[in-house]
Amino acid sequence: MKTIYMDNNATAKVADEVLQAMLPYFSDFYGNPSSMHTFGGQVGRKIQQARGQVAQLLGAQPEEIVFTSCGTESDNAAIRSALAVQPDKRHIIISRVEHPAVRVLCDHLSREGYRVTQLPVDKGGILDLELLEKSLTPDTAVVSLMWGNNETGVIFPVEEAARLAHDRDVMFHTDAVQATGKIPINMKNNVIDMLSISGHKMHAPKGVGVLYVRRGTKFAPFLIGGHQEKGRRGGTENTPGIIGLGKACELAAQNLVEESTRVKRLRDKLEKELLTKIPQSRVNGDTENRLPNTTNISFEYVEGEAILLLMNELGICASSGSACTSGALQPSHVLRAMGVPFTMAHGSIRFSLSIYNTEEEVDFVIEKMPPIIERLREMSPFWNQEGQSCAVQ
Amino acid sequence: MKTIYMDNNATAKVADEVLQAMLPYFSDFYGNPSSMHTFGGQVGRKIQQARGQVAQLLGAQPEEIVFTSCGTESDNAAIRSALAVQPDKRHIIISRVEHPAVRVLCDHLSREGYRVTQLPVDKGGILDLELLEKSLTPDTAVVSLMWGNNETGVIFPVEEAARLAHDRDVMFHTDAVQATGKIPINMKNNVIDMLSISGHKMHAPKGVGVLYVRRGTKFAPFLIGGHQEKGRRGGTENTPGIIGLGKACELAAQNLVEESTRVKRLRDKLEKELLTKIPQSRVNGDTENRLPNTTNISFEYVEGEAILLLMNELGICASSGSACTSGALQPSHVLRAMGVPFTMAHGSIRFSLSIYNTEEEVDFVIEKMPPIIERLREMSPFWNQEGQSCAVQ
Repeated sequence: MKTIYMDNNATAKVADEVLQAMLPYFSDFYGNPSSMHTFGGQVGRKIQQARGQVAQLLGAQPEEIVFTSCGTESDNAAIRSALAVQPDKRHIIISRVEHPAVRVLCDHLSREGYRVTQLPVDKGGILDLELLEKSLTPDTAVVSLMWGNNETGVIFPVEEAARLAHDRDVMFHTDAVQATGKIPINMKNNVIDMLSISGHKMHAPKGVGVLYVRRGTKFAPFLIGGHQEKGRRGGTENTPGIIGLGKACELAAQNLVEESTRVKRLRDKLEKELLTKIPQSRVNGDTENRLPNTTNISFEYVEGEAILLLMNELGICASSGSACTSGALQPSHVLRAMGVPFTMAHGSIRFSLSIYNTEEEVDFVIEKMPPIIERLREMSPFWNQEGQSCAVQ
Repeated sequence: MKTIYMDNNATAKVADEVLQAMLPYFSDFYGNPSSMHTFGGQVGRKIQQARGQVAQLLGAQPEEIVFTSCGTESDNAAIRSALAVQPDKRHIIISRVEHPAVRVLCDHLSREGYRVTQLPVDKGGILDLELLEKSLTPDTAVVSLMWGNNETGVIFPVEEAARLAHDRDVMFHTDAVQATGKIPINMKNNVIDMLSISGHKMHAPKGVGVLYVRRGTKFAPFLIGGHQEKGRRGGTENTPGIIGLGKACELAAQNLVEESTRVKRLRDKLEKELLTKIPQSRVNGDTENRLPNTTNISFEYVEGEAILLLMNELGICASSGSACTSGALQPSHVLRAMGVPFTMAHGSIRFSLSIYNTEEEVDFVIEKMPPIIERLREMSPFWNQEGQSCAVQ
């Protein structure tokens, strides 16, 4: 059975070009870049090249790129650093729809005595910048807001938010794990201090990430040890992963147009057809300011897990909520924050496409989804035999 | 020019079997193990298999294995956890010869108000267990001592040390990054609470490590985010790296005999011949309790960096001090802690072999080293024309 993979916000295929770029660095050129000998030193030069490739995609300087092991590490490092370099400030601002790498960390920090403000979003998942401005205090150490939401794709106006924070001398971090490679990012045009990237969301391998740290931003390392990354992250460099991420950034820069045209067109077709063919379905999140590859659709009166199970039997991969919180029985915190009704939130499916998806795959999903939803609704106690919803309080 | 790689304590070649085991998980089976669909779930089963392979090598239970991104992360996580779960205790005991991942972290913690005792070692690099016992106080949160030293290979009696710590209700961590796969480790035979492993020191790739956490040991996660690793380490699993590390552990178990016989024999031959052929050379560190692959030899009145440079011209890779501290002009902190005289410490070279080294390579190094040292001594202001050292104060 062919796999139709539409779960790219959970993780994505390593691009063939990326794997090819990495391969020599496992068993042939495996030296330690810190070593004195040429065998190690030559790998150091490849890491510098990768640093340049990442910087190029972001409109950044190579020395502003700190390689990490994943998006979660980047997020943890950014927020912990902001607190460490401003020990007198005890207030953090995030939103209610942040990724667990930020949200769960901040829950933890609130138990350590930090004050955490979680900004609400409206029903479209949109942030109120005025509320952000009002929440900034002289005690605020850092604002951390995601660039693109992993569950809905909704894009936050992080560049404006960063300016508001900076006007009050507050550091600004963004989790750009989902946004990088899907929409243009140019750090020359904003004042964002720190930005997190994850390799495996952009066709580089799992196990590598980046924290962008703007030149001049005070930084305290999270992983403490060797002198690697100019003392900003100890630990021997994951050279194949870093070289792969560099290549992935080079490819992402080339593919940005395809992301915003062909991938977007496929996503729009999928979304439009599903909404047309399946009654009482709706898109969660603002459809204007959204990543080009993501759609989160609720099918009322059915369970997301049951939908996924039937999709799985046909080889179609998608997700219900975030992969990072799967296993939990509660509906997604993102949809709850948006006030999506219970009967809608439970039946939400996230389709997240990539440049590797084809029109045929989209057509297949459009064909298969309506009977899946129909079959489940027939079994639902909340859905009557005429194909209409009962009035549920 | 052929590369003769004798710098395996810095980093090691990924075994072909390991790379083959990893390869399908980049671009074919790239699903997220947390996903609901079979495409992701099947990867989850491979991670469980890898967890079992690591546990098997250590005589541990699979649920005691927490995958991390590197040895430095494991060390940071272990020590930070011990402090977090015992917030009233403010004392840490390490040795003067720990890896920077422990030593630099503890320097940092001492600036945060923790009291750090650095136990001395004798001229053989051996620890005084009585002194450890005397240093344990009711305020001691954790003892962290390395199993095998990265620079000299000297093995610490960590199992006895752990028992002493436990007798005083003190947690015990060991950095076993260099020991794992080189000497037998059986966690059933000791009371060590936490143990760090690094993939790339044992023919798995860079970018993956393990923290062993004994069942029942209180643990506070370092990377906070998703539910991965049973809530002990957030972040999408580095699936190819983890699968590779599992395979590497399986191979290490098979290769332990070769490590302790053929590799040890090659190391002993190299060491014996160099000491015989090169006057005023000596081994640093106790030669009895030592990793089978490592020898650290000082050549008096020459500079380690100069030796490495000439070795490099012949394709021979080794190191002076630790790769993690290269670039520093000071002689190794390990040799200084052992009281190695300045004129000896500066001319120290670490040869660290692996199962991939051959007798021919050892013979080549034995042939090439004497003229290198002779040539450098001819240029040394501290070495007179008769090939004897001057009396230097």
